[in-house]
Amino acid sequence: MLTLYLAPNTCALASLIALEQAAAPYRIARVDFAKSAQRSPEYLAVNPKGRVPALVTDEGILTETPAILAYVAQAFPEAQLAPLASPFEFARAQAFNSYLCSTVHVAHAHRMRGPRWVDEADAHAIAAMQRKVPQSVGAAFALIEDGMLEGPWVLGERYSICDGYLFTLAQWLEKDGVELARLPRVLDHRRRVAERPAVKRALAAEQGGAE
Amino acid sequence: MLTLYLAPNTCALASLIALEQAAAPYRIARVDFAKSAQRSPEYLAVNPKGRVPALVTDEGILTETPAILAYVAQAFPEAQLAPLASPFEFARAQAFNSYLCSTVHVAHAHRMRGPRWVDEADAHAIAAMQRKVPQSVGAAFALIEDGMLEGPWVLGERYSICDGYLFTLAQWLEKDGVELARLPRVLDHRRRVAERPAVKRALAAEQGGAE
Repeated sequence: MLTLYLAPNTCALASLIALEQAAAPYRIARVDFAKSAQRSPEYLAVNPKGRVPALVTDEGILTETPAILAYVAQAFPEAQLAPLASPFEFARAQAFNSYLCSTVHVAHAHRMRGPRWVDEADAHAIAAMQRKVPQSVGAAFALIEDGMLEGPWVLGERYSICDGYLFTLAQWLEKDGVELARLPRVLDHRRRVAERPAVKRALAAEQGGAE
Repeated sequence: MLTLYLAPNTCALASLIALEQAAAPYRIARVDFAKSAQRSPEYLAVNPKGRVPALVTDEGILTETPAILAYVAQAFPEAQLAPLASPFEFARAQAFNSYLCSTVHVAHAHRMRGPRWVDEADAHAIAAMQRKVPQSVGAAFALIEDGMLEGPWVLGERYSICDGYLFTLAQWLEKDGVELARLPRVLDHRRRVAERPAVKRALAAEQGGAE
């Protein structure tokens, strides 16, 4: 049995979608950001970074979305969530996910998590970061729109771990103030991912009640 | 034959080290940052993101350090550069690399690449970012010091793609203003990686003349 530590409306949704797509046995453990539970001694024992997601497996704990996604794809190969047979194609999937975590998510994080990179009392600098988010996130998504998203799915004909991850970050486009008219392919992708039964289950589990 | 696009003193060194460790057949293509060659039409045709590294293979082009490292490890398995036999252990390697790209490298980048996240004319905000770098990079390395670096190598007893990547980012600690006395294990690791013949070859190739 796997345990996924998550908070709603975070990138942990990508891992949750992958677990649902893989029909993996898992339970959810909620980390209450409103109570700063990610900084509690109990949670720091799970993930010293104080972030979600974290995936507890029988072999140990994994963090970082791209790693969790690769693990789910490899541990449940029958779900065919990544092109595992080819080192090049698998690396291509990981290149996409790496771009999401290191560029797209990071650009987005400057809207709410500015104190990671400037003094939190520096209101001018915090506001300056927030003002740039529509442009920086928009430029990152424009590269996805213009080529990285092959279509119909990220890697081409076959749905993969990349699609649920892109879908997750694309949830934030409106609040990030990105010009949506520039991203018709990304928005069409977002709509199609949302229609998948496994994604609907993941969204319900992310927000929803008792497990 | 592989072609690695790189510029000196960038994270491309990690991929170069991996290629040397794997005894992979490769050539180097230099991207002259002093002439903004990363923004030239020629290079944007290789990597639309305008960044290094990029690895040209017979099957296509890979970008993003964690993906290139995973590719080298999988394409040259005899070099034993990652725990490929276990999905969990391989994911653990990728979690480490993902942390380096999305947290450590990003914190560092706020010293020189501030205009990615604020208006470049905003001198106050640029300076505010630079001031935080010793703390943000230092905190990220403290987590590595205190646990993520298992010892003697990142993943434990066996050297892996993670070690050359950590070594690469640890090159920047002094200029980032990080308190080195806090990081004895990281510094010892950096010294030991520097002594490896493949790493010496990579460092010479990174800086050096004609290919």
